[in-house]
Amino acid sequence: MTENIDATAPILLATADHITTLTLNRPASRNALSLSMIAAFSDALDVVARQGEETRVVILQAEGPAFCAGHDLKELTAHRDDPDRGEAFFEETMRACSALMRKIVGLYKPVIAAVDEIATAAGCQLVASCDLAVAGPRARFCTPGVDIGLFCSTPAVALSRNVAPKHAMEMLLTGALVDAETALRIGLVNRVSADGARTGARALAALIAQKSPQAISFGKETFYEQSGRTLAEAYQIAGAVMVENLLAPDAVEGIGAFLGKRKPVWPA
Amino acid sequence: MTENIDATAPILLATADHITTLTLNRPASRNALSLSMIAAFSDALDVVARQGEETRVVILQAEGPAFCAGHDLKELTAHRDDPDRGEAFFEETMRACSALMRKIVGLYKPVIAAVDEIATAAGCQLVASCDLAVAGPRARFCTPGVDIGLFCSTPAVALSRNVAPKHAMEMLLTGALVDAETALRIGLVNRVSADGARTGARALAALIAQKSPQAISFGKETFYEQSGRTLAEAYQIAGAVMVENLLAPDAVEGIGAFLGKRKPVWPA
Amino acid sequence: MTENIDATAPILLATADHITTLTLNRPASRNALSLSMIAAFSDALDVVARQGEETRVVILQAEGPAFCAGHDLKELTAHRDDPDRGEAFFEETMRACSALMRKIVGLYKPVIAAVDEIATAAGCQLVASCDLAVAGPRARFCTPGVDIGLFCSTPAVALSRNVAPKHAMEMLLTGALVDAETALRIGLVNRVSADGARTGARALAALIAQKSPQAISFGKETFYEQSGRTLAEAYQIAGAVMVENLLAPDAVEGIGAFLGKRKPVWPA
Repeated sequence: MTENIDATAPILLATADHITTLTLNRPASRNALSLSMIAAFSDALDVVARQGEETRVVILQAEGPAFCAGHDLKELTAHRDDPDRGEAFFEETMRACSALMRKIVGLYKPVIAAVDEIATAAGCQLVASCDLAVAGPRARFCTPGVDIGLFCSTPAVALSRNVAPKHAMEMLLTGALVDAETALRIGLVNRVSADGARTGARALAALIAQKSPQAISFGKETFYEQSGRTLAEAYQIAGAVMVENLLAPDAVEGIGAFLGKRKPVWPA
Repeated sequence: MTENIDATAPILLATADHITTLTLNRPASRNALSLSMIAAFSDALDVVARQGEETRVVILQAEGPAFCAGHDLKELTAHRDDPDRGEAFFEETMRACSALMRKIVGLYKPVIAAVDEIATAAGCQLVASCDLAVAGPRARFCTPGVDIGLFCSTPAVALSRNVAPKHAMEMLLTGALVDAETALRIGLVNRVSADGARTGARALAALIAQKSPQAISFGKETFYEQSGRTLAEAYQIAGAVMVENLLAPDAVEGIGAFLGKRKPVWPA
Repeated sequence: MTENIDATAPILLATADHITTLTLNRPASRNALSLSMIAAFSDALDVVARQGEETRVVILQAEGPAFCAGHDLKELTAHRDDPDRGEAFFEETMRACSALMRKIVGLYKPVIAAVDEIATAAGCQLVASCDLAVAGPRARFCTPGVDIGLFCSTPAVALSRNVAPKHAMEMLLTGALVDAETALRIGLVNRVSADGARTGARALAALIAQKSPQAISFGKETFYEQSGRTLAEAYQIAGAVMVENLLAPDAVEGIGAFLGKRKPVWPA
């Protein structure tokens, strides 16, 4: 088991049974994505990426009343006094935050959001950017930038890739809270877990951790790579990956085990 | 309050409380999109665009038994006697109609369809082209071009960007009527309002009219601009807009108000 | 009525009332997509394409306990002893299988999957590749490649174009079975038919067979052609098709019949 040494770190990391749990650990600031929080989060994803086989699935959860409140508005506002009125800092923040979201998508391991709290703006974007999401019964989601004069344009990128356009637009234009059942209905989360998001996410992660990590590594990358392409391009990309995957050790073992009617043992 | 002087105009326009209501006003012809109807509609959208702050949200509704019956088949058929069998007129109609649909999408203000009636073919496309849609309990939708030998190919552009492909294909291949509840389930409308579409649309519009018009202006454009792009491109576009939006007056006021725990007053 | 002469053929083909039924007829091998099965299937689609007006709609159904079990793992595994470890054969299989899926999409006639059984991996891809799908109450769907070390990357191409990304990812990462009602909810099938998929698919096919075949031919191609394009491109493509469609015989007859309040008779 791997863990942070420092329980006061902005992101807690704990690995057990091939599942790494990342916990957003700035409850007092509602886990807002300040530049330092983004950096710590990004570093944690790098640790997970380097772990190799030790981690097969990642769960993203949070401490405190808010899953994540989005950007750190105090930090952004402090830079309005900069000679450039904050432009350079805003650019840096947006670049770092989008890179973080893309790092979740680009990680060769599934990431499951476990949301029992409120996920707001870039916090909602975080949920949308994960491969899977489990909500607790009291989870809530919103993109309320229109209430503070700042449209949730970057959250919209992830949100509009998860739900139908009229559902995305309703969230973006009204800023209204969406409850767990509605989030389930529109496709923002996979499950509402009566026992709480963490229990549901852990069950889902345990199931996925039994599957071929190599196959998942091939597949997650390909899934996002082929997305939005023409059908011809998508099949060209995915077909080439299938051949590569067929020749790789996990498929040799997995298909052999299936035909031999035994359980596969994934090569390390 | 702004209003048409002429209550017999093909499109009625009335503005109050930052909400402009456009009413399709050719009930006898089921609000069919003749070239003159398209022109009047397009002009009305130009008026709204020029209004600036006066209009923050647009509601699109209709007089008579049909919300909109699609193209004007009599007008199209009359041109079959042209030397070119109507080709030039058909081209003009399609160009004008697609431009109208794109003008709704391109308007820097949210447009809400309020549908209590039947919306057919290009009339259904109109609903799909609006940012949001509210249905009354008896609203119905269909794309029945297959019944008249003319597949709803242009309506399919908007429809297929709203609902899942198998749902779109079922509507397009069968031409069958879809009721309000089904439209809600597949994502063609946001809400079914028991009190009628106009009541529901007005409530939604009143809510959105309180939000930052500048943020919405940034966000609506960006939403459609980033759609269908790769994730990298989408974040580049949206990130640049976020910086611009952060530097604009509404975000200065809105974020300041939020941190100061007071209500924002959007600069005019 | 057209039929295979040979009832032991891998694909049975029967045409009646403008509906061609293709039946996957290798129940003992769970209709796995061996190279020979793919070739027979592809040939059958070519026959249908050449039939012209005789076939207006295609139903795809299966004999035996499985609709289709995906790739033929025994055949693939036999080629692991090739000097190239099977690489050339795997490439050939993937190319042929993707071409088959695209041939269904490219056929100028609607294809309806009728699924009463289990559809697995490329079998699930087959369902997703059809224009419409009807499930029986006990139909089940899954993409369990992660269980055998081979991610369902090519099935993901079709699946992710049918259902929301988090739903697709859940199926792909867990390999879990999805029942008929869930498939309906997420958009993988159009209907669950209590009387069985074949009854439901036949009713849907009979309805579509009455519609203009020419309009459908214009429309199906355009639907997939405009998909994933920018709005401007999509309208350019679809608008040009509308003009062509308006000038074609079925639209002359269909619109004329509609205005004359009589039933259309589609020109042969």
